[in-house]
Order: sequence, then C-alpha cells, then structure tokens
Amino acid sequence: MTALPEPIARLAQALGRLPGVGPRSAERIALHLSQSDPVRVRELAEAMTGARERVGACQECGSLTETQPCGWCVDPRRDASLLCVVEKATDAVSLERSGAFRGRYHVLGGRLSPTQGIGPEDLRIAALEARLDAGPAREVILALGGDVEGEATGHYLVRRLAGRPVRVTRLAQGLPVGGGLEYADELTLNRAMEGRRELT
Amino acid sequence: MTALPEPIARLAQALGRLPGVGPRSAERIALHLSQSDPVRVRELAEAMTGARERVGACQECGSLTETQPCGWCVDPRRDASLLCVVEKATDAVSLERSGAFRGRYHVLGGRLSPTQGIGPEDLRIAALEARLDAGPAREVILALGGDVEGEATGHYLVRRLAGRPVRVTRLAQGLPVGGGLEYADELTLNRAMEGRRELT
Repeated sequence: MTALPEPIARLAQALGRLPGVGPRSAERIALHLSQSDPVRVRELAEAMTGARERVGACQECGSLTETQPCGWCVDPRRDASLLCVVEKATDAVSLERSGAFRGRYHVLGGRLSPTQGIGPEDLRIAALEARLDAGPAREVILALGGDVEGEATGHYLVRRLAGRPVRVTRLAQGLPVGGGLEYADELTLNRAMEGRRELT
Repeated sequence: MTALPEPIARLAQALGRLPGVGPRSAERIALHLSQSDPVRVRELAEAMTGARERVGACQECGSLTETQPCGWCVDPRRDASLLCVVEKATDAVSLERSGAFRGRYHVLGGRLSPTQGIGPEDLRIAALEARLDAGPAREVILALGGDVEGEATGHYLVRRLAGRPVRVTRLAQGLPVGGGLEYADELTLNRAMEGRRELT
C-alpha cells in the first residue's frame, strides 16, 4: 500500500488538471472530499456534471447559457444595435460584471493565430456577419486582448467589416485605474498618451 | 440573466467550500469545467464520489483505506510492536510519505479540546487500549500536533497509558531542517536546546 488509497490518488490526479490547482492542493482537496459528508460530495459531483450538461453556447452570440438563445440576446432592455465582440465566453462574463456594457455580445471563440493554425474560418466571424446582415448594428465594439494575436484579430475584423455601414471601435488602452505610472510598461504609456482626453 | 448561468454559479459556490479554493478560483474552475470535454467532467465527478464511497476508515487503525483492515495493518513487513498515534488520517499519510516510520498507525480522529467539547470518549483512545491489550506493543510514539491541544492530548495519553509495559515517546521538536535560527520562535529554540544531541 502506498501512502494514498488508489481512489484518492486518482481523484487528486484529476483535480490537478483544473486551472490553478497544483498537485499539493489537489491532494489536499482529494483527502478532504474522501472524508466529507457523502451527500455534499454527491452534490458537488452533480453540480459539476450539471454545469457541463446544462450549459452550452448561445447559438446567436456564443455566450454561456442554459437557454437558446441566451438571456442577453432576448433581453429587450439591452441595446441590440451595439455589438461587443469578445474572444471567449468568459470575457463576456467579465464585461457584464463590470456593468460597462448593456448591448449584445458576440463571442468569436478564440483569436487568429497562424502559429496554432487558427484562421478566420475557425472563429465565429461568418456568424458575426450574418448577425449584421440580419439586423444592422450601429456599432461593433472590439473587446479583444491587447496582445499581438488579439491586435491582429482586431485588424482583420476591421478590414473584413469595412464597407458595412457600421462603426467599428475598440476598447481604450491606457493606465489601469489606481495604477501608478511606475508599473506601466512603455507600450501602455504610449497608448495612454495617444488616447489622452481633454478635461472639461 | 446575471453574469453567470445558474448551474455555473451553483458549481462555483460548491467548489468554494473546498479547502484552499477561494471564490475567484472556484469561479474560474466552474467556468473551465462548463466548457470542458464532457467525458473528462464525468470522470472527475465519478472520481469524487468514488473516493468518498470506496474509501473509509480502517476498523483497526483508523487510516484511510479501501480494504478492511487496511494494507498497513496486514503488512507483515511492518513492525507491529511500534504504534504511532496521530490525530488525523492525513497525518499518517504525511508520515508514511516521509519514510520515517515502518510500524503501525493509530488514528485518534482528533484531539482533546474542552472548548469544542471534545473529550477522551470522542477519540479512538479506548480502541488504542484494546489494541495494546490484544497485542502488546513495545513502543507507542505520539506524533501529535505541537500546539496546546496536541500537547494536552499527549499528556492525557501518557497518564492513561501509565502502568502498561510500553514505552511512550513523542516526536522530537526543534529546528526544521534547512531553517535558520532567525526563523524559529523562542519556544521552538527552547525545545531544540533541550533536545540537543551529542555529536559523535
């Protein structure tokens, strides 16, 4: 017999594949669960499979949802003429939580990456065009990552949407709120300078 | 619709009850699982319930085990005359992994705590005596926590086992290996001084 009974070792291994869970905390959680109230353990296991089985991508916007289309897509209080394009469904969750946006989302499902072989046809770009065809929007807001691939994806979308009667904008880049200049890299400082705004 | 679909929110809440998992990482894991390969999610959920259902306490020593008695208790290569008393089953796992001990374990299932209403009858102390009656050991090693309650539990056990023809020892206290004196508290330094050993 090794130190851990096999079912605990196997659970620890499976837990160790979760994001942010290292081998030591995986083992701690596995030991904890193997000695917990069985009802609670079953609840957790069922919450897990339930979350996977009941949640899917909205056929319209690609967000995580239990219903088709998702609650955001059918909410009449949201501005349907504003379309915010994000890379991942979790990005929409972050934006929604910030309260900064009350329009509709469009999840690309990734970003262009020649090195990983991800081209335009692998992203939900045709679906974006179909949405714009179906109900013209007045603005498409690109809320993509500020790294090279996010930028490249944004440039590609700008070219691809050119000719349509729609404004294409992107999120501002600059200093994080509460962050001093000493923590910002040079590129961010450049972007913050370029995007400076007049105080009225 | 709030930012998170309900099944994901519920899973995040359940995950947040696990040791070392804060609300933010619980949510990150929940979002990850809700978009993972369903087969993998089911495997994890089953590993979870399996670990709880297949693992129990050894009726002899109280360790975590799939079999009755556990592999340690039936291993003829382990010295049955050495009994190492630990508070929790996970303490036995830690000791076993260190390779420092090759006898039998005895899990108390906690420690004396008047403030939490935990008395001797709540711990597996009678079971320890029964084991000593059944097969006399030459040494009982107390591997209890170095805090007040662990110390009190150790003192109680020493009194309770007095009169039996068995040596009762405790783990050494002192400096951690690799740790400098500047990191040790005064009590630990005192214990290290008391327990000093002659170099031969």
